[in-house]
Amino acid sequence: MTGPEPAAQRIAVLGAGSWGTTFAKVLADAGSDVALWARRAEIAERINTEHHNPGYLPGVPLPASLRATDDAAAAMHGADAVVLAVPSQTLRENLAGWQPLLPPDATLVSLAKGVELSTLKRMSEVVAEVADVPMAQVAVVSGPNLAKEIAAEQPTATVVACTDHDRAVALQAACSTGYFRPYTNTDLVGIELAGACKNVMALACGMAAGLGFGHNTMSSLITRGLAETTRLGAALGAEPMTFAGLAGLGDLVATCTSPLSRNRTFGERLGRGETLEQAQDATHGQVAEGVKSCSSIRALAARHGVEMPITEVVHRVCHEGLAPAPGAAMLLGRDPKPE
Amino acid sequence: MTGPEPAAQRIAVLGAGSWGTTFAKVLADAGSDVALWARRAEIAERINTEHHNPGYLPGVPLPASLRATDDAAAAMHGADAVVLAVPSQTLRENLAGWQPLLPPDATLVSLAKGVELSTLKRMSEVVAEVADVPMAQVAVVSGPNLAKEIAAEQPTATVVACTDHDRAVALQAACSTGYFRPYTNTDLVGIELAGACKNVMALACGMAAGLGFGHNTMSSLITRGLAETTRLGAALGAEPMTFAGLAGLGDLVATCTSPLSRNRTFGERLGRGETLEQAQDATHGQVAEGVKSCSSIRALAARHGVEMPITEVVHRVCHEGLAPAPGAAMLLGRDPKPE
Repeated sequence: MTGPEPAAQRIAVLGAGSWGTTFAKVLADAGSDVALWARRAEIAERINTEHHNPGYLPGVPLPASLRATDDAAAAMHGADAVVLAVPSQTLRENLAGWQPLLPPDATLVSLAKGVELSTLKRMSEVVAEVADVPMAQVAVVSGPNLAKEIAAEQPTATVVACTDHDRAVALQAACSTGYFRPYTNTDLVGIELAGACKNVMALACGMAAGLGFGHNTMSSLITRGLAETTRLGAALGAEPMTFAGLAGLGDLVATCTSPLSRNRTFGERLGRGETLEQAQDATHGQVAEGVKSCSSIRALAARHGVEMPITEVVHRVCHEGLAPAPGAAMLLGRDPKPE
Repeated sequence: MTGPEPAAQRIAVLGAGSWGTTFAKVLADAGSDVALWARRAEIAERINTEHHNPGYLPGVPLPASLRATDDAAAAMHGADAVVLAVPSQTLRENLAGWQPLLPPDATLVSLAKGVELSTLKRMSEVVAEVADVPMAQVAVVSGPNLAKEIAAEQPTATVVACTDHDRAVALQAACSTGYFRPYTNTDLVGIELAGACKNVMALACGMAAGLGFGHNTMSSLITRGLAETTRLGAALGAEPMTFAGLAGLGDLVATCTSPLSRNRTFGERLGRGETLEQAQDATHGQVAEGVKSCSSIRALAARHGVEMPITEVVHRVCHEGLAPAPGAAMLLGRDPKPE
């Protein structure tokens, strides 16, 4: 095929944590023109001069083509896509500040995984609402994507989801590189619910490991956890097959089995008998996403009449003082029945 | 509810390897009257007098009620169910010898996971053919069931499958105990294909680990591996949802992630560059089930026109001299597309 090479897409990545920085590296390695916004000028400066992000991605050389800035307006100027790489419970507040700066037709890409506590909205719903854009302009990226492994250029697959297939394909092109292989999907609802619920299941698997249970128990929790996630998805209009894909099963397995997963290690602390406060102190005040999501997902399930026994137990352990051992017994002690 | 306690079921377990011995322990702990057949009189003797099986389940105390014998006729006499705990590729030969001794109405339970190389038959098909019984008399037990964890009485779920639901329920009752929770299912075809294919996927995950790939890659292989298994199942008349259950996804995750899995560790050796012969020598001459199953499953897929790229690569690595690294590249280097 001959013809002009398409111009590199301009992409702003807002948030220089470990996943934001890693995704910015992927985009730059894929040939996109990337501006990474960091809240702190010092971090932007070090990325520009030393080409690494010691606080969030130590030891990983970043491409020289990756520009960082602490000026959000500069980062977003002329961008074809704006990637939102901030935690789910602060996305609304951050985006409200950035809203006046958004290029009118830019694809808005959410990397956050969660359901907003106060409204029970998915991240794409928050984005469309706050940015005041149609849902077809919002995309999400989700899959078995442990940031440290991608940063080390390990071969990884992911899903780029947007109800507008053309935008999904453009974003796919912007981030396709040798070690990162994106597939497109139009089931935004399913992809987002899978991403939010897997953090809750990783907490459950961590608790089981902390209690001393092995791979049989963990695999059963993953299986039943995916089943209850799929039930919730079906009630909310998602495509059931999405949950069997990379952003469903794939991400769930990666998060539940990896020692790199924050939710899994946080759950292990709870399983070993630490309180929520102790676990939080030990992780420098950071609370795993699933600790908040378990409550919003539980509320969403209740609203739609969906039974989610694992989510229920995780919520009770995190927020109602239930000890993990009786929590596990609640899951195991049900009547024999067909699968 | 009042009424007479049902009489304990009499169960023969034929084969005193690690899974056969463990399942015999589960049955005895569940209150069944169990006779365990061992090929070697010495093993039967030690189980009867010392209540353990040092060769295959070292350090695990066996229930005193568990009787062992090297006399297959004695083991099967009056049995309500006969459990076949021998490797898949020797099941036909073993069962042919036992056939005259089978109690006429006994449920025949296969624990073997594989597809017969010479005939491409599933284990239940081999059993029904050799025992000359209707398929409704044949059951399988399969799930995330690492024997060592069950032997340690870790909480574990499993699936008891039989096209005759009443037989499945009877077997469920015979093996339900505090730490072992069986669910019934009537999709024998799906349960068996899932069990056979997961050994092939565990080899693939082991190879990836041996090549130095991490959790993102492993999770993608599990996801795509389950997808190709489900495609084969659909072509053979299985219920697609079976593959999302404990004997599908559950067993796949347990086998692919556990260092206790023989297929996974065998694959790791191949990934690190050992030949099939070297890996076999290092595992005392034992070949992992998946090494044989990959060829029979590949042939079954070809017969039904089903594409199974991971199985294809595993087969080529095991039997056609392909090195694991170019094998991985074959899986990663396909065109970008929708999921």
